[in-house]
Amino acid sequence: MRTKLMVPGPVDVDEEVLLEMARPMEAHYGQGWAKLHWETVEMAKEVFLTRNDLFVIVGSGTAAIEAAIGSSIGGARPLVVVNGGFGERLLSVAGSYMPAVEALRLPDDGPIPPEAVDEALRRDPGIGMVAVVHCETMTSVLNPIKEIGEVCRRHDVLFMVDAVSTLGGAELRTDEWGIDLCATGSQKCLGAPPGLGLVSVSERAWRVISEGNVPGWYLNLNVWRDYAKRWEDWHPFPITMAVPAFKALKKSLEMILEEGIEATWERHRRASALLREGIRRLGLGTFVPDEWASPTVTSIIPPEGIPPERIVEHVERKHRIRLAGGIGKYEGKVFRVGHMGPAAKESRMAEVLWAVEDALSELRR
Amino acid sequence: MRTKLMVPGPVDVDEEVLLEMARPMEAHYGQGWAKLHWETVEMAKEVFLTRNDLFVIVGSGTAAIEAAIGSSIGGARPLVVVNGGFGERLLSVAGSYMPAVEALRLPDDGPIPPEAVDEALRRDPGIGMVAVVHCETMTSVLNPIKEIGEVCRRHDVLFMVDAVSTLGGAELRTDEWGIDLCATGSQKCLGAPPGLGLVSVSERAWRVISEGNVPGWYLNLNVWRDYAKRWEDWHPFPITMAVPAFKALKKSLEMILEEGIEATWERHRRASALLREGIRRLGLGTFVPDEWASPTVTSIIPPEGIPPERIVEHVERKHRIRLAGGIGKYEGKVFRVGHMGPAAKESRMAEVLWAVEDALSELRR
Repeated sequence: MRTKLMVPGPVDVDEEVLLEMARPMEAHYGQGWAKLHWETVEMAKEVFLTRNDLFVIVGSGTAAIEAAIGSSIGGARPLVVVNGGFGERLLSVAGSYMPAVEALRLPDDGPIPPEAVDEALRRDPGIGMVAVVHCETMTSVLNPIKEIGEVCRRHDVLFMVDAVSTLGGAELRTDEWGIDLCATGSQKCLGAPPGLGLVSVSERAWRVISEGNVPGWYLNLNVWRDYAKRWEDWHPFPITMAVPAFKALKKSLEMILEEGIEATWERHRRASALLREGIRRLGLGTFVPDEWASPTVTSIIPPEGIPPERIVEHVERKHRIRLAGGIGKYEGKVFRVGHMGPAAKESRMAEVLWAVEDALSELRR
Repeated sequence: MRTKLMVPGPVDVDEEVLLEMARPMEAHYGQGWAKLHWETVEMAKEVFLTRNDLFVIVGSGTAAIEAAIGSSIGGARPLVVVNGGFGERLLSVAGSYMPAVEALRLPDDGPIPPEAVDEALRRDPGIGMVAVVHCETMTSVLNPIKEIGEVCRRHDVLFMVDAVSTLGGAELRTDEWGIDLCATGSQKCLGAPPGLGLVSVSERAWRVISEGNVPGWYLNLNVWRDYAKRWEDWHPFPITMAVPAFKALKKSLEMILEEGIEATWERHRRASALLREGIRRLGLGTFVPDEWASPTVTSIIPPEGIPPERIVEHVERKHRIRLAGGIGKYEGKVFRVGHMGPAAKESRMAEVLWAVEDALSELRR
């Protein structure tokens, strides 16, 4: 009996998707591959809800994030809005290209107020880009991307979103919400194995990127665009593509589009609602109230006197379900359930709840 | 009947290795994963013949190359020695970090003379690093890395080698030959699927890297070293690892070490010797004489009047073996056979020769 993975990424991958990983190798170039490449990119655009350019980079979600930030930072000084650990990561990435990046640090137990972003942009008219995380997986706080996007449009600055732990699971409308640079990874709500980062790039972002001085080659979006055009029919990317991961991504995108992107969001919403309700019925607390909670991950406060690690350990040992502990300042304070991609099912939530209830009664003895 | 892949990467992957790709997903952290991580790194070091630090990066071979060059360029001004298309790539990568990188351009139909490197270093004592490609896969020229390494040691400059198309297939002794930064990809002679880059880093290189101003985060070796130390027992890398590709790499490294690294080189040498002899017996030319030829790829000149694309097309259609054409200035002039990793077998070479002979007699009609 294998362990079910319910951490906030990577997620359990559907068998059909996994099988794509084990097919005999093929070359990552030629007319056949180029066709498969562009079909996959078009499907990814449908899931992103964008008509912008989109690139699939061999790398983690952070590679896609760095491609977005590193490529535009030369022409658009960033304001990084931080309300958790992955916001700090955005700041590290931006700070590696430029000293003294502007940071707006906000409490991590609630979402970013759009007014705070508005105010920061008023204070410093030299800002050219706002970068935020959609869902902070450490706390499960979901930030109001749509409203922050409206602020960015009013100030006419680029809007970069780290959607690694939401895209494909929580409502996210790249074009409608004015997201110029949207980055995610293959291994969370997209339901594919880890190894690929995806990033979409608006025309507004291209105007900055193509004129800025972009350091680096591998994550330089100008290089990716150049190959996509010059080698469109043969090798539309600058490097050796991760063939199996790419084919797996194609399959998982097909499955999402077959279900429908709004139906996929709804499935995540229903699964997370069931989990949150059940958790409270067990007498435990959720770290954030429902109105700020991501439908993709839930951070749970254990009862007084029971360390969260012991719940995680019991659930894995006895029920073969792997949950995640807290990290950073939340170590020893919370445990977390990921409900992303194929794992975002009510039946899976029932299994988790039953296992947690069992852990509690065992540990209370 | 599936097509056998005989291009110079990616290579056909052994079934045992492919199966690792399709196992149920697991988390890329925790004590179990950290153990598997370090075991894999130790095996990779054995194949590199190094005791230096070694990192497995989610990315292509170029990501490993850029990690090496980009991390050290701030403290060691490079001389890039170019005798082919992948040397030009090194130059593009280096040039993306620094204007006017010193290039030593040499003819691409022969190997780099170590004396030329010596002379260039005498001329410009401000050079801090020499970067070269081991095998230029477009021409199949193998550069004399050992001798160039001796020159670098005499001048006390860092030595960076792009071993993407040789490591695990052609003799390469990282420590003995004084290679400070050695980069490769998973998908060639290591016999694993594409998606991972590997790079080794000497103490001499660390002295430069840890003091230089390294731009970027994802490919910054200081970041990788920091996580490897701080999160050694839990998550010894800064990003989400490509779990299936990593497990596949582990399996392929196990198979190489079981065969023995010198026996693996010998197998590549025998396969390429058989191919080259057979090619000449068919009346075709090899692009470079045997003494400069890489044991991992062979560039072949077709007979007058027969375009190489037609040979490649016939061999794929009728014999289900995929060869590669020439690229860049060699398009329409040569075709290429990759014999890397599991495909470097005499029996496979016989199949290729038979298919090429058949193509020639068909096309001569």
